[in-house]
Amino acid sequence: MRITPREELEYRIKKLQSYMAEADIDAVIVAQNADLFYFTGTIQSGALYVPATGEPIYMVRKDLMRARMECGLREVVPFASMKDIPGILSNYGYGLPARIGMELDVMPVNFFVRYRAVFPAADYVDASPLIRRVRMVKSKYEIHLLQDSATQVDKVYRRAREVIREGMTDLELAAELEFVARKEGHQGLVRMRAFNAELFYAHVFSGSDSAVPAYVDTPLGGLGLNPSFGQGAGLKRIERNEPIIVDFAGCVDGYLTDQTRVFSIGDISDRMKKAYDDMLKVQQRMTEVALSGTPWGHVYDVCRALAVELGYADSFMGAKGAQVSFIGHGIGIEIDEYPFIAKGFSEMVLEPGMVFAFEPKVVLPGEGAIGIENTFYISNYEGLKQLTFSDQELISL
Amino acid sequence: MRITPREELEYRIKKLQSYMAEADIDAVIVAQNADLFYFTGTIQSGALYVPATGEPIYMVRKDLMRARMECGLREVVPFASMKDIPGILSNYGYGLPARIGMELDVMPVNFFVRYRAVFPAADYVDASPLIRRVRMVKSKYEIHLLQDSATQVDKVYRRAREVIREGMTDLELAAELEFVARKEGHQGLVRMRAFNAELFYAHVFSGSDSAVPAYVDTPLGGLGLNPSFGQGAGLKRIERNEPIIVDFAGCVDGYLTDQTRVFSIGDISDRMKKAYDDMLKVQQRMTEVALSGTPWGHVYDVCRALAVELGYADSFMGAKGAQVSFIGHGIGIEIDEYPFIAKGFSEMVLEPGMVFAFEPKVVLPGEGAIGIENTFYISNYEGLKQLTFSDQELISL
Repeated sequence: MRITPREELEYRIKKLQSYMAEADIDAVIVAQNADLFYFTGTIQSGALYVPATGEPIYMVRKDLMRARMECGLREVVPFASMKDIPGILSNYGYGLPARIGMELDVMPVNFFVRYRAVFPAADYVDASPLIRRVRMVKSKYEIHLLQDSATQVDKVYRRAREVIREGMTDLELAAELEFVARKEGHQGLVRMRAFNAELFYAHVFSGSDSAVPAYVDTPLGGLGLNPSFGQGAGLKRIERNEPIIVDFAGCVDGYLTDQTRVFSIGDISDRMKKAYDDMLKVQQRMTEVALSGTPWGHVYDVCRALAVELGYADSFMGAKGAQVSFIGHGIGIEIDEYPFIAKGFSEMVLEPGMVFAFEPKVVLPGEGAIGIENTFYISNYEGLKQLTFSDQELISL
Repeated sequence: MRITPREELEYRIKKLQSYMAEADIDAVIVAQNADLFYFTGTIQSGALYVPATGEPIYMVRKDLMRARMECGLREVVPFASMKDIPGILSNYGYGLPARIGMELDVMPVNFFVRYRAVFPAADYVDASPLIRRVRMVKSKYEIHLLQDSATQVDKVYRRAREVIREGMTDLELAAELEFVARKEGHQGLVRMRAFNAELFYAHVFSGSDSAVPAYVDTPLGGLGLNPSFGQGAGLKRIERNEPIIVDFAGCVDGYLTDQTRVFSIGDISDRMKKAYDDMLKVQQRMTEVALSGTPWGHVYDVCRALAVELGYADSFMGAKGAQVSFIGHGIGIEIDEYPFIAKGFSEMVLEPGMVFAFEPKVVLPGEGAIGIENTFYISNYEGLKQLTFSDQELISL
C-alpha cells in the first residue's frame, strides 16, 4: 500500500490551477472517486475544493480520520452538509466563486442541482476535460505503479499457460486468472469513467464466443454469463484449435494496465495465424508513429489504414456492424482515460508521460477473434516504451 | 442463463405506466443499466422509451441483434443518435412528450443536457423514485432468482469453514471465497446505485481491521488494500480469538443477496459473544415487526431502540462517530434498493414482495466488529421469509 506523496498531489493541483487560469475558472469542485483519488490520495467521502490560486480544501464527510491519514494535502476539514461549504470557504478567506468547474460528465443531475443551490449565482462549466488533461500525463511515481501493475498482469498470463485445458469453460479459466490477480493484490474494482460503462477484471473467451458483439465500447465483447452483464466469459467450453483470448486489466494501488494475449490448444487456422501476425505489424507501425507531438487521430488513421491494406476493412476492431472507432485508450486510474487513439482527435497530440493501451484486433465471425494488446508510455528521452511485457508469441499449448 | 419472460417485462412496464399516470408524466426514458435490465431484460446500449400508454420502444445503438435475442419486448429498433428519437416516436404515432421522467439520480449532467436538446420544450422530472417503487416489489420469478443467489452465498459460507486458517491474510481469504462464487456463476459485478458507491463482492476482514471506519455507507468498512479503494479485505493476518467477518453478496442472473456470518479460530471474548447473541435478538425483533403495512422507519426505530437498550448506543451500526442511520436495505439488481430500513421513512410501508437485507452489527473499537446479516422477503400469505439460509451460529474453528 502506497500513500501518494504530498509533492505529487501539490504538483497535480498546480497543473489543474494553471488550466483553470487558461479557462477562466474560479474554482473546481472534485467529487468523483477516481478524480478524488488522483488529487487527494484517497476517496474518503467528500469533495475537494480547488481555488484558482491558493491551498485546496478537502472537505470530508466520512471518514475524517482516515482522510487525514491517507491524504497528503494540508487542509482536510470536516463537513456535514453542502450548506457548510460557503462558511468553510470564508474561514479560508476565499470569496464565493463566480465560475465553477464540476465533473459534469460523471456527476448525476440531482447531485449537481444540490451544489447549484449552494452557489446559486455562479456559472457552471464542465471541468472534466481539464481534469482529464492533467491526469493524462503520468509522473515517474505513477509509472512505477504502472510497472507493478504490468508485473501483476504478467503473472496472470503465466498462470493462463498453466491452467488452460480442453473442456474447461471460459468462466472457469476467468475464475482461475482472477484468483491469481486478486492474491497478487488486485483491488478487484476496475474503474471506467463513461456512463453505464462497467468492467470486471477481464475479457476471457474462446473461439466463437470471442466473436460475439456486445454493448460495451470495446472491439471484442463476449456473451457473458447472462443478459444482466452480457460481456466477458460465459459457459462455452474451450476446444482444440481455436483462439483463447485473455484480455486482462492488472491493478496495483489503483493503477491499471491492460494486456491481451492469445492461446490455443493445438494449432489455429492459417488465416487466424496470419491475422495475428498482421496485428503485430499494426502494433509495430504504431510504435513508429506514436511520437511526442503526433496527433492522437493520426496514429489511429495510419494504423487503421495499414489494417485495411492488410485486408481487414470489415473485421478490424470488431465484427462488421459492431466495429469501434478506436484502437487504443489512455489508462491509469480509469481504463478510459486520455489519450484516445481514435478517429478524429486531430488537435490533441501525444506528450511525454502519456500512457495508453493499444489493441489491434480482428473478428472473424464464426471462427473467433484475434489480436494483441499492450500498455505503452511515452518517456521523456527514450521515446515509446512498453509497460506490459509478457511474451508476444501466440501460445500453442 | 435466464431470459426474462415477456409477461414479466410487460407487467413491470404496466406498473410503471400506472405510477406515471399518478405523477402526470407523459414519458419515461430509461437509460441506466440496472433499470434497463429490469424493464428490457438486457443492457444492450440504448434507451427504453416508455409512453404513458401503449407499447414501449427499446432504441438500441449496440448490439441490436443481441437486444432482439435478449429482450422480450415487441418493439426493439435501431438508433444511431439521440436526434433520431423524435422520428422514431413519430413512426409509432407518438407525439412529443411535454413532461418527461428521467433517472436524474444517476444520469450525468452532460448526458441529460443532450437529451434536453432533443425535447427542448419539455419539462423534466426525476423518474427514479417511480422506477424504484416498481422495482422494490419482486415477482415470483425474481424470488426464484434470489433463491439461487442465496444458494450461491451459502456455498461461499461453506467454503469459508474449510479454508480459514491462522496466519492467512484477509485478502487470501477473500480471494478464496470470490473464487468459489465466481465458479458458481457469480457475474462478478455488484451494482450499487448511489453516486460514487462501489463494491466488490464482499467485505471480508478480521479483528481490528473489521472495526476500521470507511467512506462507504455501510456499518463496517475495512481498510482495504490501498487508499484508491479503501474498503474490504486488506493484508492483516488472521489470528486466534478474534472475529472474522464474511459479508458476501451472491449474484445469479443479475440478482443479489447479502449475507454476513462470523467465524473465529478458537473462542472470541465473552463480550463479543454476548454482542453476537444480542444482534440475533435484534434480528428476531425485526421479524416480529416487519409485517406488511409497517412503515420502514418504524422497523428501524424499534430495532435501534432494542440495540440501545442492550447497551450499544455508541457501537450499533458502526464505530462511534461513523454510525450509519440504517439497519437494512432493499436488494435485487442493485444492493441499495428500496425499502430502506432506516431512520425517517415513516410514510413508506412494507408490502408483499419486498426484499431486503437486514444487518444488525456492532463495532467494538480495537477489538473488532460482530453481527449478522440475512436477506428476507415478505411473502404474500406467509409473512416474512428468510432467503439466505446458512447456519446462524458463530462458527468457532
